[in-house]
Amino acid sequence: MLNYSFDSYAKEGLHEECGVFGIFSDGTINPAYACYNGLLALQHRGQESCGIAVSDDGVIEYHKNMGLVTEVFNNSILDSLNGQMAISHVRYSTAGGSVLENAQPLVMRYVKGTLSVAHNGNLTNAVEIRRQLEQRGAIFQTTIDSEVICYVIARERLNCHSVEEAVARTMQTIKGAYSLLVMSPRKLIAARDPHGFRPLCMGKYNGSYVFASESAALDACGAEFVRDVEPGEIVVVKDGKVNSIRPDFGDKKKALCIFEYIYFARSDSFIDGVSVYEARKQAGRILAREFPVEADMVIGVPESGIDAAIGYAEESGIPYEKAIVKNSYIGRTFIKPSQKERMKSVRIKLNPVADMVKGKRVVMIDDSIVRGTTVDRIVTMLREAGAKEVHMRISSPPFMWPCYYGTDIPSRGELIACNHTIEGITALSGADSLGYLPVESLHEMIGYAPVGFCQGCFTGQYPADITVETFKGKERGGMNFDNKCQGTDN
Amino acid sequence: MLNYSFDSYAKEGLHEECGVFGIFSDGTINPAYACYNGLLALQHRGQESCGIAVSDDGVIEYHKNMGLVTEVFNNSILDSLNGQMAISHVRYSTAGGSVLENAQPLVMRYVKGTLSVAHNGNLTNAVEIRRQLEQRGAIFQTTIDSEVICYVIARERLNCHSVEEAVARTMQTIKGAYSLLVMSPRKLIAARDPHGFRPLCMGKYNGSYVFASESAALDACGAEFVRDVEPGEIVVVKDGKVNSIRPDFGDKKKALCIFEYIYFARSDSFIDGVSVYEARKQAGRILAREFPVEADMVIGVPESGIDAAIGYAEESGIPYEKAIVKNSYIGRTFIKPSQKERMKSVRIKLNPVADMVKGKRVVMIDDSIVRGTTVDRIVTMLREAGAKEVHMRISSPPFMWPCYYGTDIPSRGELIACNHTIEGITALSGADSLGYLPVESLHEMIGYAPVGFCQGCFTGQYPADITVETFKGKERGGMNFDNKCQGTDN
Amino acid sequence: MLNYSFDSYAKEGLHEECGVFGIFSDGTINPAYACYNGLLALQHRGQESCGIAVSDDGVIEYHKNMGLVTEVFNNSILDSLNGQMAISHVRYSTAGGSVLENAQPLVMRYVKGTLSVAHNGNLTNAVEIRRQLEQRGAIFQTTIDSEVICYVIARERLNCHSVEEAVARTMQTIKGAYSLLVMSPRKLIAARDPHGFRPLCMGKYNGSYVFASESAALDACGAEFVRDVEPGEIVVVKDGKVNSIRPDFGDKKKALCIFEYIYFARSDSFIDGVSVYEARKQAGRILAREFPVEADMVIGVPESGIDAAIGYAEESGIPYEKAIVKNSYIGRTFIKPSQKERMKSVRIKLNPVADMVKGKRVVMIDDSIVRGTTVDRIVTMLREAGAKEVHMRISSPPFMWPCYYGTDIPSRGELIACNHTIEGITALSGADSLGYLPVESLHEMIGYAPVGFCQGCFTGQYPADITVETFKGKERGGMNFDNKCQGTDN
Amino acid sequence: MLNYSFDSYAKEGLHEECGVFGIFSDGTINPAYACYNGLLALQHRGQESCGIAVSDDGVIEYHKNMGLVTEVFNNSILDSLNGQMAISHVRYSTAGGSVLENAQPLVMRYVKGTLSVAHNGNLTNAVEIRRQLEQRGAIFQTTIDSEVICYVIARERLNCHSVEEAVARTMQTIKGAYSLLVMSPRKLIAARDPHGFRPLCMGKYNGSYVFASESAALDACGAEFVRDVEPGEIVVVKDGKVNSIRPDFGDKKKALCIFEYIYFARSDSFIDGVSVYEARKQAGRILAREFPVEADMVIGVPESGIDAAIGYAEESGIPYEKAIVKNSYIGRTFIKPSQKERMKSVRIKLNPVADMVKGKRVVMIDDSIVRGTTVDRIVTMLREAGAKEVHMRISSPPFMWPCYYGTDIPSRGELIACNHTIEGITALSGADSLGYLPVESLHEMIGYAPVGFCQGCFTGQYPADITVETFKGKERGGMNFDNKCQGTDN
Repeated sequence: MLNYSFDSYAKEGLHEECGVFGIFSDGTINPAYACYNGLLALQHRGQESCGIAVSDDGVIEYHKNMGLVTEVFNNSILDSLNGQMAISHVRYSTAGGSVLENAQPLVMRYVKGTLSVAHNGNLTNAVEIRRQLEQRGAIFQTTIDSEVICYVIARERLNCHSVEEAVARTMQTIKGAYSLLVMSPRKLIAARDPHGFRPLCMGKYNGSYVFASESAALDACGAEFVRDVEPGEIVVVKDGKVNSIRPDFGDKKKALCIFEYIYFARSDSFIDGVSVYEARKQAGRILAREFPVEADMVIGVPESGIDAAIGYAEESGIPYEKAIVKNSYIGRTFIKPSQKERMKSVRIKLNPVADMVKGKRVVMIDDSIVRGTTVDRIVTMLREAGAKEVHMRISSPPFMWPCYYGTDIPSRGELIACNHTIEGITALSGADSLGYLPVESLHEMIGYAPVGFCQGCFTGQYPADITVETFKGKERGGMNFDNKCQGTDN
Repeated sequence: MLNYSFDSYAKEGLHEECGVFGIFSDGTINPAYACYNGLLALQHRGQESCGIAVSDDGVIEYHKNMGLVTEVFNNSILDSLNGQMAISHVRYSTAGGSVLENAQPLVMRYVKGTLSVAHNGNLTNAVEIRRQLEQRGAIFQTTIDSEVICYVIARERLNCHSVEEAVARTMQTIKGAYSLLVMSPRKLIAARDPHGFRPLCMGKYNGSYVFASESAALDACGAEFVRDVEPGEIVVVKDGKVNSIRPDFGDKKKALCIFEYIYFARSDSFIDGVSVYEARKQAGRILAREFPVEADMVIGVPESGIDAAIGYAEESGIPYEKAIVKNSYIGRTFIKPSQKERMKSVRIKLNPVADMVKGKRVVMIDDSIVRGTTVDRIVTMLREAGAKEVHMRISSPPFMWPCYYGTDIPSRGELIACNHTIEGITALSGADSLGYLPVESLHEMIGYAPVGFCQGCFTGQYPADITVETFKGKERGGMNFDNKCQGTDN
Repeated sequence: MLNYSFDSYAKEGLHEECGVFGIFSDGTINPAYACYNGLLALQHRGQESCGIAVSDDGVIEYHKNMGLVTEVFNNSILDSLNGQMAISHVRYSTAGGSVLENAQPLVMRYVKGTLSVAHNGNLTNAVEIRRQLEQRGAIFQTTIDSEVICYVIARERLNCHSVEEAVARTMQTIKGAYSLLVMSPRKLIAARDPHGFRPLCMGKYNGSYVFASESAALDACGAEFVRDVEPGEIVVVKDGKVNSIRPDFGDKKKALCIFEYIYFARSDSFIDGVSVYEARKQAGRILAREFPVEADMVIGVPESGIDAAIGYAEESGIPYEKAIVKNSYIGRTFIKPSQKERMKSVRIKLNPVADMVKGKRVVMIDDSIVRGTTVDRIVTMLREAGAKEVHMRISSPPFMWPCYYGTDIPSRGELIACNHTIEGITALSGADSLGYLPVESLHEMIGYAPVGFCQGCFTGQYPADITVETFKGKERGGMNFDNKCQGTDN
Repeated sequence: MLNYSFDSYAKEGLHEECGVFGIFSDGTINPAYACYNGLLALQHRGQESCGIAVSDDGVIEYHKNMGLVTEVFNNSILDSLNGQMAISHVRYSTAGGSVLENAQPLVMRYVKGTLSVAHNGNLTNAVEIRRQLEQRGAIFQTTIDSEVICYVIARERLNCHSVEEAVARTMQTIKGAYSLLVMSPRKLIAARDPHGFRPLCMGKYNGSYVFASESAALDACGAEFVRDVEPGEIVVVKDGKVNSIRPDFGDKKKALCIFEYIYFARSDSFIDGVSVYEARKQAGRILAREFPVEADMVIGVPESGIDAAIGYAEESGIPYEKAIVKNSYIGRTFIKPSQKERMKSVRIKLNPVADMVKGKRVVMIDDSIVRGTTVDRIVTMLREAGAKEVHMRISSPPFMWPCYYGTDIPSRGELIACNHTIEGITALSGADSLGYLPVESLHEMIGYAPVGFCQGCFTGQYPADITVETFKGKERGGMNFDNKCQGTDN
């Protein structure tokens, strides 16, 4: 099975965890096909597995598998998924432990019939809740937080009058990041955690209601953007009518993941009122002011550095050039060259337009530096192509801390910025100069928009306390078993 | 994906539900490879999906997928499954609703660590238990009884001191047919329902203990047969030592499925002390005495009628001939001819040795008649090949009633014997005469061995009461949702 | 891709090279579907690759691929192959060098339009002809003799008035074994070499004419057997009319491969007037007379030893039993056990019915011994199952010489009978006694039917001279390049 | 099997025919891996099939299949392809009639051993030559020109002293476009037709010689660009030494396909001394001068319009923006929306950054207009996103004539520019204005470099006469049979 990664080479493995898409149709749009288009537009948020669950008068059918949306679905599968509403999911691909069991949406049966859940984010107290549930006789068949969420909803449903109330009660129990789509036999429910870590927005297509991780997915199925689901809000669609529930979560800090603007989201998405493309260009403009340099051209590392490069060029007056070409046919199955040929290999995925670069002073923009290996290769590549000077500009602050809310920033030991000074990184990269976006500029980057954001990976200050359990559990997948189940019984 | 069925054409869809195989190794045999060989030997009991779960010091890894054992496993997968014990499963393939979710073993985590279950049989009160569990907050992700069993074990484990005690308590709750392999972090547990509907035996390979649905699977991995697990018995292997537990189930009738001898099991298996091959030959001998006829040859419908045909020939003195050749390359993907060519099509899968049959009086033995379509085709085929007379002998009594214990005998409306007299069936089949094994001879068939057996499908008298719920739920898969989940919430 | 071999384990790799099937339809039968059924019936003659070419008013479409018939074809492919006539082919699977390029039928364009060829057999002068053609500018894209045949036909066609005349001229040039189906834009031509090494027969279905390697393939598509194509005969079907051409080949010895009766062909086929099943039973009867022994049962190694076992039992009066069960789910993808477990492994594919064999004197029949490894394993298996005595009877004479006519009998160094006396083989096999069918009995085996046959592999006396080139080229595939092309240019 | 097309949606099916890559290694670089990297870099030139043939001391092994390079090859396949030299090929994917038989390199055996050929281009007299060869007894197994070339080389080799001489003689016979790699047992030969329609360049890696359709493929395997192979030149590498042969072709007009600069080639390639990226930017600059307009931003249709957009922005001073985002996960398997949803569907593959475009005057650059359907959709998309004005600028002249030299420009009836005036196209597209690059500016586009080019598709004036046969045969694949072979014999 072929998996194509979105810039995985350049990004050294920084990934979003998931994307969700759901629709309650008024009959003018086929829910399964709408999900297909929506998932295609969200594919960059997860390439490991994907799935669509459709509810037909309360009967659910679903299809999910490892692979890209175009690999997992075809016309005959989509045609078999009939119904009035649907939720769907793309999941991010880890290097090794991908297992089908963890694919979403989760579909299950509980006391009130069927329940389907699609979830983007990471809970910070999943381990504790799981342990409590086990102590009351629960069994777990996956290693994803979403199963915990399902369980809590099922339990809460026994003590209240509707599934939306059960979701509201569940949100008082679970902590961390979640943008959630829940499908009961008659209702489509969208919910976003009180901090609003992960994006979630609502659109409309005639009388159909659509929910998606990003607004670009609304565009893809022809829906119009209505508004973002607000942090802590529950939106319920039933019988074609929309209701909003806002449980009291006390005083929660708004904390959208700032990296959605910097890298995760698509340039053509709007998140919490801010244009992603404009934010990236603005980061480039700020870098041009903070780290000016005399140069002949500004270039961006494709694709993620291009928007900021255009902004840097605009602000500095230095011409923007497309001096690096990316081979879009190279995906995850790309055969890696042996270690000794590694330096040369970057020219398979990325190749400079040599005659443009030769003898020139180049400003090169990328969105982040994680382990530092990519930047080194790109600087070397430009030098070999004859660049006289290479000035690196990074459109985010240095990564210094782990993320507990659904991204896979590696441990501190692997983060180059934790172990080196700016001068050290500059030296290692081989660049003539290096400038990171200042942490203080993040608010300017989003145009001083009234969006509270989480910048924990840059500052170590998180919007909520992190328990020791969560801290220990900080690793890919988040849970302490994958498809390996640790045993403890006597 | 290719699935080869075992005689599915001739049998019109009579299938066993599953086969199980497990091993607790002393280190002299690789558990995953032992399971692979064992499952190969049990493939006839299920061709839909298969799986192996291995426990390595309490950490479980597993692999399961749709397809045959040779399709699902290869060396690299087997090599990745390391550990000291393993359980494994083959599942029977329905025509349409095969879903990966239902593949076994089920692997889950509960309060005491990991729990894996492989299950052969059908519960008769799964729906009731499921409903009770749901009313206490449980969620279900599959449609198989085995998930119910896991849940009950997990709950019972909270109230007792060991997993084997939890299994014992579970056996007081669940009703129906089950031969069960349970793997906890340190123990391998084999359990058989108090009626002993499905076979389960124990073998030994050096200091390793092996459990399998049939003794032929012990042969396949080089193990020696030790004994059958007895109805109502729990066998626990821990630290290389075997313990037997016999909970009190009151006065339960022994009720091994008699069809294991007639058709399901392999000829080379021993079940509850009786040789399957010998029982089949004996059925042939009884038929020869009960329904003698002057004829030139005795032939068996391959493969399932051959053993009885040898017995009939031996008893009657009429020569045994292999006058029908079966094409072993035709499996499930075989392209069916259009309706109008159906009568001819039987010669693709089965073809007579025409010169043997021409002008001859033939006794033809098959193991059963379900809907009556196969027997009709075979008689026609022999007539077209020139047979002067065709005398059908069936090595089992007529199917009159459904099975609630793990086979897929169709509803009464489809059973030819429910709707026609023997004369009527003879006429429909086109045979010159027809003889069924008398119900009264079943005990003679197994040599008057002290094996209590269930003959409910012939007599309608079952060893335990069947609830209305079970009666209604009598359909493939047994549960009232497949991967369609019926919704009920408001 | 899954390949299932026909008894490959037991046979240690003795294989036929190919099977052919063709049809000229009168419109009452779909040529592609007829070929599909015919190839299914011939699958035992080749499992490497298969193909069907259909001619629709002179326009040819074809489909061929590696794999079994059920793997390579499906309804949508068959539906796309429309036309009035078709030829098709199954090719035998070597261990390694299977290449798609060598799949048949070959389809090509020459001066008179299209030409398709399906070929069973091996030429003995292909290398010489190929060299001559190359010296006149020819290029070769495959390594099969069939391409040479196409070339010669294309050349001869330039000098004569019809394609059948070109075929006749070609038959004066090519030497060795060939049963040939040739499809020109308007004609279906069947031809058999003057010695008649390989079988080829003709059938009829309404007004449609069918040709097949074996009569069982006629049965499979509902056609009636008409007659064998005679050695040296060319049968031409055009406009629904049949013509026979018999070029003068001088005095050629009839030389049907005797191993067709012993092992290659299906039991339900008739070849050159002789029933294969009857010949095999007769071999058993002869063995019973030549090598009588006191014993409790006669068994056959499944499947190829069963017919002779029935004959032995009939002649000797010792009961026939099915005391070895073959697992039909084990094909080529079967994972081989490691060397040290090899002796045990035979019980995966074959397993004795232990209680039948225990303490008994067993006569065991197999069709041949090639390298001697299988017989050793089976004797060991029976001994371990408790057999008191094991008497091997082989329904063919010892293999002593290579075959140049389309089978893969290994080199003399590997043939056990070339390197050991009967006593030596008996000792190696561990059997109590061993008896081979005498060479002198082969004629009796086929009922003294007037069939000239080739017994070169037993006697070293071939029906035609073998050139040094052929002798050297004696290896799998027959040609001196596979998809490796040896280079010679300066 | 998944095929990803390079911008197929936007381009409506304009495709190059092929790309070639070959290497003669000095032992410091693995030929198969070099080809793999080279083919990856040339994947945009053909996505239907690909193949690598390696010569190991004159023995050739090869692997080819349908699909992308990353799909067809893996480490174990590459590891099996050992040798000192290799040639390889990517082939363009037509909608339907892709057949494996047509995959390249062609590998064959002729009088002097093996011969392998990889070919980019289209002959204009292939049909005539094929007919002549057939009249002398030749047979053809593919429908590609390359087989004709092989035949002619094989014939000529009989009359001369070396394979390079045979190639030189062949070049006097064949007409049209070809960049050719030929591998004989000891020599690697690169040849380019006398007009030089298709690019071909030479590079060096230590002592290894590399040939590729584009210089970017040299970069990908670490080789340095040496020079272009000149029109009419034959370069022979033998024993690590390079020789150039320049047969006399009379006065042939240099005629590089100008569309290589406009669209086919990669931005980072150099062809015949001209930078592709620079040529595209220059086209943008010319458009800015020829068709100036007041606007707020310049955008390019990804990916092919971006370079020219940067040039237009540079010349006009209007800011360049990335206001259209392309979904790189959508390939050929993308499920097309139904006809009525077609207008909306463009937002699945391409989506505007709505807030950038809203209320703005946009200059949009694309490289060409073929049928006019894409431009219509993109203009509509921008209008829907709120663009106040949309000004289309096309970086090539209007397509008016077919191409006979290896591209798939559709017939005149389908070309919008053949049937409408500029005003008409503007109206149909919905744009506010439309400007095509003037034909007269093509020379300025490539910086007045001394490159003779073919602009037949714009002017109808071809560098050589086109025969009636070629004219009639102008259709996909070029030959008059695909895997349908038209029959003519009596």
